[in-house]
Amino acid sequence: MSESQCDIGFIGAGVMGKNLILNLADNGYRVCAFDLDHNRLNALLEQDKKECGGLPARVETCNSYTELLAKVKAPHLIILSVPAGAPVDDVCSKLMDAGLKADDIVVDTGNSLWTDSVERAKRYEGKLIFFTTAVSGGEVGARFGPSLMPSGDRYAWSRIEPVWHAIAAKVDKASGQPIERFEPGSPVREGEPCAAYIGPIGSGHYVKMVHNGIEYADMQMICEAYHVMRTALGMAPEEIAEVFREWNRGPLNSYLINISAEVLSTLDSVTEQPLVDVILDRAGQKGTGLWTAMSSLEVGCPAPSIAEAVYARSLSTRKVLRTRAAQKLQGPELTQVAAEQREEVIAQLHDALYCAKICVYAQGFDLMKLAAREQGWQLNFSEIARIWRAGCIIRAVFLQSISDAYDRDPKLSNLLLDDFFTQQIADHQANWRQAVASATLNGIPVPALSSALNYYDAFRTVSLPANLLQGQRDYFGAHTFARVDQPEQRKYHVQWSEPGRPMVEI
Amino acid sequence: MSESQCDIGFIGAGVMGKNLILNLADNGYRVCAFDLDHNRLNALLEQDKKECGGLPARVETCNSYTELLAKVKAPHLIILSVPAGAPVDDVCSKLMDAGLKADDIVVDTGNSLWTDSVERAKRYEGKLIFFTTAVSGGEVGARFGPSLMPSGDRYAWSRIEPVWHAIAAKVDKASGQPIERFEPGSPVREGEPCAAYIGPIGSGHYVKMVHNGIEYADMQMICEAYHVMRTALGMAPEEIAEVFREWNRGPLNSYLINISAEVLSTLDSVTEQPLVDVILDRAGQKGTGLWTAMSSLEVGCPAPSIAEAVYARSLSTRKVLRTRAAQKLQGPELTQVAAEQREEVIAQLHDALYCAKICVYAQGFDLMKLAAREQGWQLNFSEIARIWRAGCIIRAVFLQSISDAYDRDPKLSNLLLDDFFTQQIADHQANWRQAVASATLNGIPVPALSSALNYYDAFRTVSLPANLLQGQRDYFGAHTFARVDQPEQRKYHVQWSEPGRPMVEI
Repeated sequence: MSESQCDIGFIGAGVMGKNLILNLADNGYRVCAFDLDHNRLNALLEQDKKECGGLPARVETCNSYTELLAKVKAPHLIILSVPAGAPVDDVCSKLMDAGLKADDIVVDTGNSLWTDSVERAKRYEGKLIFFTTAVSGGEVGARFGPSLMPSGDRYAWSRIEPVWHAIAAKVDKASGQPIERFEPGSPVREGEPCAAYIGPIGSGHYVKMVHNGIEYADMQMICEAYHVMRTALGMAPEEIAEVFREWNRGPLNSYLINISAEVLSTLDSVTEQPLVDVILDRAGQKGTGLWTAMSSLEVGCPAPSIAEAVYARSLSTRKVLRTRAAQKLQGPELTQVAAEQREEVIAQLHDALYCAKICVYAQGFDLMKLAAREQGWQLNFSEIARIWRAGCIIRAVFLQSISDAYDRDPKLSNLLLDDFFTQQIADHQANWRQAVASATLNGIPVPALSSALNYYDAFRTVSLPANLLQGQRDYFGAHTFARVDQPEQRKYHVQWSEPGRPMVEI
Repeated sequence: MSESQCDIGFIGAGVMGKNLILNLADNGYRVCAFDLDHNRLNALLEQDKKECGGLPARVETCNSYTELLAKVKAPHLIILSVPAGAPVDDVCSKLMDAGLKADDIVVDTGNSLWTDSVERAKRYEGKLIFFTTAVSGGEVGARFGPSLMPSGDRYAWSRIEPVWHAIAAKVDKASGQPIERFEPGSPVREGEPCAAYIGPIGSGHYVKMVHNGIEYADMQMICEAYHVMRTALGMAPEEIAEVFREWNRGPLNSYLINISAEVLSTLDSVTEQPLVDVILDRAGQKGTGLWTAMSSLEVGCPAPSIAEAVYARSLSTRKVLRTRAAQKLQGPELTQVAAEQREEVIAQLHDALYCAKICVYAQGFDLMKLAAREQGWQLNFSEIARIWRAGCIIRAVFLQSISDAYDRDPKLSNLLLDDFFTQQIADHQANWRQAVASATLNGIPVPALSSALNYYDAFRTVSLPANLLQGQRDYFGAHTFARVDQPEQRKYHVQWSEPGRPMVEI
């Protein structure tokens, strides 16, 4: 085997692909890149040249799948960064035509639907080893350290592990804080890497999907807190940015709070007005939040705050309808909060956001747990929380506490039952309730903060009114019910139209 | 053609099938029934004999698909009441083998998924006319008058219409109230029938699915009102039944309120305790509520109260977890309401239920509207509301007001924008807010009542905080945004890492 051969073949040099390749190069891997679009390969070479100065090029390119296989060491390690769907299968079949062998590894890093990955691993069995890695952190993450959620064949993982550990985001062991790195050519080899084997094929992309669902809810709740400050407290964007900067020094410390402050303190370069006031309030979405909510419905796992966040985005897009509705539909008289009460209301919002955030993570981790049970995956929740501490959008100090909770009890049924989180909510819930109640009375929508509180309260209710509901269902549809004083599997039905309404066991 | 020939061939004599057949017989139709299970056919004949006394049998049976076709007038009208899924296709192919012709009509009345019906109509084109009718109202409805939601080929509808009009539930023209009929052999031919052509194949089952989604939310909200009365007011089941009976005389008048009162005033025949207290609080579900919530996510139509109702059922099933959580998770001190304030709190709950119910119907009708737009269906929403006034589970006086609203404006964008409903919520919202705020402060979960209120408030908000959200998305993912002062299709991006953060058009 020639010394000049490359370590990794990389297919797809779009924005994400290019950045992953340069990240690999920073970490000493020799990559041979291929893309059907030659312009992209040229852009990659130029960027590499620019970054490594006078040094010889760190990246090679090639003109065909055959050439790619020839330039990369066997057994081959091929990484794909191509659009999800048909292109993945197209590349796999081209690679097989070009002579890929059964012990060669193909790693899909695109935004594939997790069930597609499961099917692919089956389809390609014996022809190649199909492995996946969900990548979080966007362009910047890909370039300087993403959070990586790999899943699939164990042998393949043993080959990929050092590569992913090298390029992943790193967390400082002592502080639990992300190690920032934005200089090309300067790999950070210290610190805990945000890349851990998730489980069988598909599980990595499922976990990434839930990550995005949590992200939707987290963003929505920050927006709700902003909305209350703006509306009820009449605060200016820069004042709210200051509050967020303050919050960022406490338990809410996170990337999303940080960038919210950044957005709010940015002026529009055209009008010199606060940027946030010139941005149209119509939220886009790409589907992963929606998939998470749909999965939670299918699995039977309550995730109402994630669903509310998805619905909030949908409703925001109907701006014309909302504008008409605002003129016609009455609300309560808004009570402007007096200046001397401002600090108190801000504290209430802080605690509301903190408690609701705990509930959203409880929902997301519960969903992963139930889905894992259904799929037969053994997920390590402590590790999942750990690899989300850096590189990804929901990175936060908070995730260390979640990791600790699952270290204390790997079989924890729900995050709310961990002593630390139980206590946190006990300490902060009075403010949370007050914040939601005030918004309710003042007509300010807080769907996610409020659904999280209802989730918390329903979760801790021994006797829910589902007994009446079961009575209704038995009345109109003979759906039967269980009795509190009999084993649950015994089912009863009331003969509603008979005198005395006798009960029969079914 | 012999005079002795039957009008209708009927396949499937299970509970629903048998009752539909007897209903057809009551209305003078001669039915030939077939079922693979001979016991069912014998039970049908016995029931018929019992009901029609000394008269000659009104129902015939047969032993094969061939015999069925021979006994029924051509072109044949065949109605199926078989389990959804493969059995429908199985019966269709057996009927074709037995000689069914291209102008024969097959009507599927099962709980098929609407997309399956669309595919079937395509698959059987030129071989038979595949038509569907969603049936609501359970066993009793099937026997004495269901609400029927037919969809498919227009020619087929012209043949089926008189049959469905005859057997459907009827509404008294003057009062808008259902005409009750529980005597075999006594058809009600007066009144407006609850059967109307919905639209192209699939649309009837879609509308029925949304009906069930609304039903889930309606039931959940009644349970929440019950829960507050039970918990915060310390009322006994019989006292709450009395409140529901009182409510049933006003705008909340409905079948579900009525049966809730019935359930609450029933004693357990074993222990002589209130029945509701011996029923285990674990709610079952059969999937249609879940499908509705999933469809709302896919279509991008906010239906949070329906989703909350589905989640509430899921959470109720986790009784063991809730029991542990109840011991560990703190709530607020519950303030028992003083006796002299009881009436006031009950009035708040009444108005909360009423306003939230309006919002749930607004969500359901909005969903049908958006789905119809996607599918190219022309739905008549006034008629849909009208055929839900009797026969089905959500039947209520209230539906007449919805029908009136769509008569006033068939293109109404959202029920909340109809003058009548706008005014109803304006008049009752103060109490609604108070009820939700009190439950929030007292730790009593009211997820559906509360999500409906958040829906209302978000709907009437001109400027939602989705502007900040779009700012966040542009910051971390370069997802771009529109400007309030530029046409919406123009997309902008801030160069966040550049000095002065300039904006560029994309």
